[in-house]
Amino acid sequence: MAQNIYDNPDFFSGYSQLPRQVHGLDGAPEWPIIRAMLPALIGKRVSDLGCGFGWVSRWMRAQGAVSVLGLDLSENMIARAKADTQDPAIEYRIADLETLELPAAAFDIVFSALTFHYIKDFQRLTRMIHKTLVFGGDLVFTIEHPIFMAAAHPHWIADEDGRKTWPVNGYSVEGERHTDWFTKGVLKYHRTLGTTLNTLIAAGFKLHRVEEFAPTREQIEHSPELAEELERPMMLLVSARKTESR
Amino acid sequence: MAQNIYDNPDFFSGYSQLPRQVHGLDGAPEWPIIRAMLPALIGKRVSDLGCGFGWVSRWMRAQGAVSVLGLDLSENMIARAKADTQDPAIEYRIADLETLELPAAAFDIVFSALTFHYIKDFQRLTRMIHKTLVFGGDLVFTIEHPIFMAAAHPHWIADEDGRKTWPVNGYSVEGERHTDWFTKGVLKYHRTLGTTLNTLIAAGFKLHRVEEFAPTREQIEHSPELAEELERPMMLLVSARKTESR
Repeated sequence: MAQNIYDNPDFFSGYSQLPRQVHGLDGAPEWPIIRAMLPALIGKRVSDLGCGFGWVSRWMRAQGAVSVLGLDLSENMIARAKADTQDPAIEYRIADLETLELPAAAFDIVFSALTFHYIKDFQRLTRMIHKTLVFGGDLVFTIEHPIFMAAAHPHWIADEDGRKTWPVNGYSVEGERHTDWFTKGVLKYHRTLGTTLNTLIAAGFKLHRVEEFAPTREQIEHSPELAEELERPMMLLVSARKTESR
Repeated sequence: MAQNIYDNPDFFSGYSQLPRQVHGLDGAPEWPIIRAMLPALIGKRVSDLGCGFGWVSRWMRAQGAVSVLGLDLSENMIARAKADTQDPAIEYRIADLETLELPAAAFDIVFSALTFHYIKDFQRLTRMIHKTLVFGGDLVFTIEHPIFMAAAHPHWIADEDGRKTWPVNGYSVEGERHTDWFTKGVLKYHRTLGTTLNTLIAAGFKLHRVEEFAPTREQIEHSPELAEELERPMMLLVSARKTESR
């Protein structure tokens, strides 16, 4: 079972105050890129893996999805998502992505934001997603970028000019990474970019777009603290399509 | 025109003493990965972009390629490649990949090792390669990894535990990188991983495999200096297939 850090009270109270949790999608600077990577939603059956408070699930429904299934490991998250949603076409359920099984060919789109880096068995998960998508269906997801996750001490340092610099080590050594984020010992799984992409290809996906979030000039003018995101990518965004049966 | 650093006498004399130039393919630790990414060569027409001394061109011919066209910007390289090759099915020519045009549907395989990071206009080059490949043809190439290239001062540093660590900054700022390698001011072009992959997809390629070189345990036992390559990837290796007409 994946570590359920989101139901740790310290974590949950800190996490709930992140701009993206307070302001929803407008608080997530990568949101315009995600929107551009998503196919048209009208008439689509969608699953949102790691749905959190349900911001994306509700947005997808508002864009015309006929049904949305939001899944999350956290009881707190699912309770809040249910409380914030009045729409019988959106269903929320507690689920562990390490063991989740969804029915075959049941969804047109599978979406996931910043969740898969908590998952140990990415191969099992991608095969399950491939199975639950219809032929031609899309998987769109974001994860923490392996450049961001790899190092033993992942925090800003300065180079010899004093420029903000991100350290990379242990990049090829995949597996557990323990970091402190609102609470001690948050457990994540580092995978190289090659492993992430090749696992998708091997499962029968065709890669459509691979993005590494960088803020636009307009975003930096509005939120100068985003400028540091030009120095190293924090987030990897991938869209892939089920084009082969396995 | 791409910078012709290889015909600089200081550069050429240093470069010629690299293990991979002295020992050929056995001196390149990534070679086993490249071999595994290449399709069968029997009966294939191959172009080798940035062929250098012709090590790979000759190997491909020995594996059964019916013809190999090796291209390189460097007169020194092409002269040495010609001197080292006695095979009328291998042709070497001086060419600038920034402006090169090859005939349509003339090749089954296009290969390139550690050359494309010298090229400014990668979009033009990928479209040209797409055009010169037959339908179903393969592009297999290696480049310096963007993690390796991005920083203003790309050299090893130590983290707080003294561990070898690679600095990353300016990752999202694409364009020129000037480094000293055998001589001053070697000019390379940094592109994000997303840009490299999306440019291939937009040109009509289907990505088949994305590898980031890491040494095996056996390689490290034999050559302990390779252990540092586990800390950060120096090389990106991509195989892609022409599956769409453009």
